[in-house]
Amino acid sequence: MVVTRSVQLSTRGNGDMLDITPQVAREVQQSGVSSGIVTIFAPSATSGLTTIEYESGALADLKHLFDEIVPEDGDYRHNLRWGDGNGHSHVRAALVGPSLTVPFTQGRLLLGTWQQVTYIDFDNRARRRELVLQIMGE
Amino acid sequence: MVVTRSVQLSTRGNGDMLDITPQVAREVQQSGVSSGIVTIFAPSATSGLTTIEYESGALADLKHLFDEIVPEDGDYRHNLRWGDGNGHSHVRAALVGPSLTVPFTQGRLLLGTWQQVTYIDFDNRARRRELVLQIMGE
Amino acid sequence: MVVTRSVQLSTRGNGDMLDITPQVAREVQQSGVSSGIVTIFAPSATSGLTTIEYESGALADLKHLFDEIVPEDGDYRHNLRWGDGNGHSHVRAALVGPSLTVPFTQGRLLLGTWQQVTYIDFDNRARRRELVLQIMGE
Repeated sequence: MVVTRSVQLSTRGNGDMLDITPQVAREVQQSGVSSGIVTIFAPSATSGLTTIEYESGALADLKHLFDEIVPEDGDYRHNLRWGDGNGHSHVRAALVGPSLTVPFTQGRLLLGTWQQVTYIDFDNRARRRELVLQIMGE
Repeated sequence: MVVTRSVQLSTRGNGDMLDITPQVAREVQQSGVSSGIVTIFAPSATSGLTTIEYESGALADLKHLFDEIVPEDGDYRHNLRWGDGNGHSHVRAALVGPSLTVPFTQGRLLLGTWQQVTYIDFDNRARRRELVLQIMGE
Repeated sequence: MVVTRSVQLSTRGNGDMLDITPQVAREVQQSGVSSGIVTIFAPSATSGLTTIEYESGALADLKHLFDEIVPEDGDYRHNLRWGDGNGHSHVRAALVGPSLTVPFTQGRLLLGTWQQVTYIDFDNRARRRELVLQIMGE
């Protein structure tokens, strides 16, 4: 069985991190698929997906890493060419990656207690986003 | 077909890297699924999964990267808030990611010759861990 | 349904980035699977997969990040041990990861408009490579 769903989001951009665990969990539970995997995919070149303990300290620490190794005010050839100022967003997104796969059984995600599915919008402005959830199993 | 299995591990924490290829290969072979994918998932916010040539030089080099860009003795807001001293563990885990998907055919993982499935426990103490293997295919 | 396909590539190594979206899209379309996921897997410890806007500026910016945080001329224990000079390739590959999962419906990849599936060969010489495509769905 394959069930395709989506999640609509409004982000502030600039590294905004959103806990989308509730939306993913609900779609999996309502899909009618009992056991399998859900692939969460960002159809975007300036955002990414990972898991983290979603508390303000850890989120700030992760953002600090990106600011250190891929600073917003660095010299980016993407910016020279396109002038949209989001060169750092592209590099950060490519580093984190656009997809995350989470297993589930009995309709429940097999996440850790302190682990949340987190979408990061690296673009340099507020965005409306639509993520794809591909739910597969039996 | 969906077959859910687990792998039990004892780690030393502190960036301990474990080659779990034998356990994953065995579970896939015994699952009765001939061709498909196995999703290896760490239900944890302080550990991650990747592949690497599992030899002491490459492992030390990868650990060096984490020590450089996410030093253990950095200032982490997570530590200020929770006092458990593993702020770096959370950031490293979010960077590496909690899941890895490996294809297989005829019950055999399609890994490269020098490529091992490697679990990294970034937490700052020894841990007992349980990973999820979601084996799907036909 | 599970359909296994491969993609043959010739790379220049040294961080060469190849847009493999056309090959992946064609194999998915010809697989006869309408809706599901494709796992693209590099059976290699010195290369990886991600998505990026495949334009020369963003590619150069991503390469610059790797040169900064994992410089080719750094001191690598892998090199001391094996003398093949590709210690940086192993670290970069482990950081990026060997697999990428992309959903599709009606035989079409659900990528963003500016998002391309990109293979990065971090090895320090030109290589011939074969990637695995595991196409699953209904």
